[in-house]
Amino acid sequence: MRTRLTERFGLTLPLIQAPMAFVAGGALAAAVSRAGGLGLIGGGYGDRGWIEDQFAIAGDMPVGCGFISFALDDQPDLLETVLMLQPRALFLSFADPAPFLATVRKAGVPVICQVQTFRDACHAIDLGVDVVVAQGGDAGGHGQSRGTMAFVPEVADEIARRRSETLLCAAGGIADGRGLVAAIALGADGVVVGTRFWGAAESLVDRRLIQTTLAHTGDDTVRTRVIDTIRRIDWPERYSGRVLRTAFVDRWTNDEAGLRRALPTEEQRWQTAVEAADTSIVAPFVGEAVGLVDTEQSASDIIASISAEAQGILDRRLGLS
Amino acid sequence: MRTRLTERFGLTLPLIQAPMAFVAGGALAAAVSRAGGLGLIGGGYGDRGWIEDQFAIAGDMPVGCGFISFALDDQPDLLETVLMLQPRALFLSFADPAPFLATVRKAGVPVICQVQTFRDACHAIDLGVDVVVAQGGDAGGHGQSRGTMAFVPEVADEIARRRSETLLCAAGGIADGRGLVAAIALGADGVVVGTRFWGAAESLVDRRLIQTTLAHTGDDTVRTRVIDTIRRIDWPERYSGRVLRTAFVDRWTNDEAGLRRALPTEEQRWQTAVEAADTSIVAPFVGEAVGLVDTEQSASDIIASISAEAQGILDRRLGLS
Repeated sequence: MRTRLTERFGLTLPLIQAPMAFVAGGALAAAVSRAGGLGLIGGGYGDRGWIEDQFAIAGDMPVGCGFISFALDDQPDLLETVLMLQPRALFLSFADPAPFLATVRKAGVPVICQVQTFRDACHAIDLGVDVVVAQGGDAGGHGQSRGTMAFVPEVADEIARRRSETLLCAAGGIADGRGLVAAIALGADGVVVGTRFWGAAESLVDRRLIQTTLAHTGDDTVRTRVIDTIRRIDWPERYSGRVLRTAFVDRWTNDEAGLRRALPTEEQRWQTAVEAADTSIVAPFVGEAVGLVDTEQSASDIIASISAEAQGILDRRLGLS
Repeated sequence: MRTRLTERFGLTLPLIQAPMAFVAGGALAAAVSRAGGLGLIGGGYGDRGWIEDQFAIAGDMPVGCGFISFALDDQPDLLETVLMLQPRALFLSFADPAPFLATVRKAGVPVICQVQTFRDACHAIDLGVDVVVAQGGDAGGHGQSRGTMAFVPEVADEIARRRSETLLCAAGGIADGRGLVAAIALGADGVVVGTRFWGAAESLVDRRLIQTTLAHTGDDTVRTRVIDTIRRIDWPERYSGRVLRTAFVDRWTNDEAGLRRALPTEEQRWQTAVEAADTSIVAPFVGEAVGLVDTEQSASDIIASISAEAQGILDRRLGLS
């Protein structure tokens, strides 16, 4: 399956694995790259030692790295350090990528910029990033509220108008070959898949959490700010995170002021729950596509399955006569 | 383009026009049916005289009718009246369809049931409705929060497991041939299109509103309960409505209690604004797909354009080599 994305990055499937913080380490990223996708280490909030370790684990396999962009503001030299590791691509989300572009380009590393609004998409296109990822609120983890279905073609139209060499990927709600073919139909050159790799054998997630989480339907996730509050991570107002609903999430989602007051005790409870993988409290960052994922698989099995399913859909002309 | 939906209803395109209350009258529904789609009168809250008038306007052209199901509770004989008009299909949303099924079936009229959660989809499948519409929160008007992208394939899987003869349509964020092909790839037999027909030449919307609204991007809509509050329509808690953001909507969306207190004056302001099509106040029910629609077109032009675009995408194998 060839698209502009597979050509640009030398992939066999137009698929990027989402650089999920605390989830996507070197083992997952390398496994995805080995299987023909673009694997990314989840650089997240910028823990330098951890990131270097994960690149070491990935070894010779070329992988990229993703950052929550505002985390780079506090560590101006972290970007240089990572670029020295020759990442296959740099994936930036959740802040204006402009301040980092000159540095990344000088290193010859392609820039993938994930956006959540049409307005930010226009900005990224105009900056000349290599790939724009239009991320719908259907996605797990941090994001905003645009739905993938209309957001992707709207950005595709704008790319055609502003700078047609920009590549486009769709993110949010995509976990299988159906989502991949749908994204291509909507005008994307490829997809970013998170939740399915969250549940991969190579992910860094506690096995007990994976098992419990994958049993849920897509109805069981919610966008909330509770998880950032309990972790005392100060996200900009416009971003919330999609997580699996737990009793803890339901208790506090509409009472954030209450949670702030209760932080001293609740924080301890949360930490204990994380260590015990207590699924009544801990709310993993997964998207609505959790309803499409039933079992833990290796990254290579996931990619083989997405690829075969997509090819099958295309070969039978989507079942249309 | 043939699917199980076109076969079942004798269509030339697998497309249902959303039965938008106050928007989709007999002229729009008839024009859609004439062009090869399934046109529906927006029966909405159940104004009997208006509905009869619209069926008269549709004339010999077979059209269906949609209802906000809970509106039928208060008028037990309205359903019988409409069934006497021999609608091509009955489209039910936003309440348990179970109480109405026996009556509709006795009249030999197909039942299309629109749902917003996986849980409600399972219920509708088990009830044996003819068509389940999986409506994502990307859609305009009333709905819930599931995104179209992951919701549709999740329901498709459940249909395969529970009752495979059930047809499936996707709604929410679909306005063109790209969305139609994407929905088919996701496992749907067809699509429900609202916003694009909201802006059709045959819609009942004030022309001034259409012009202003279509200039907006998909970023400019929001899910809110403000419009129901100002109209004193008591919707069940779980439903909100996606509308174009206006200064009025922004003022009250996070201050519903304030709006209730201010109702006596705000209500008058709203009514005046509706009459004047004042777009700083009036917030039309449109979906995120408003960013994909630029100009008012006739229903037949819309259908011809969606059909040609979808065929083109399929004929070039989605641009994949």
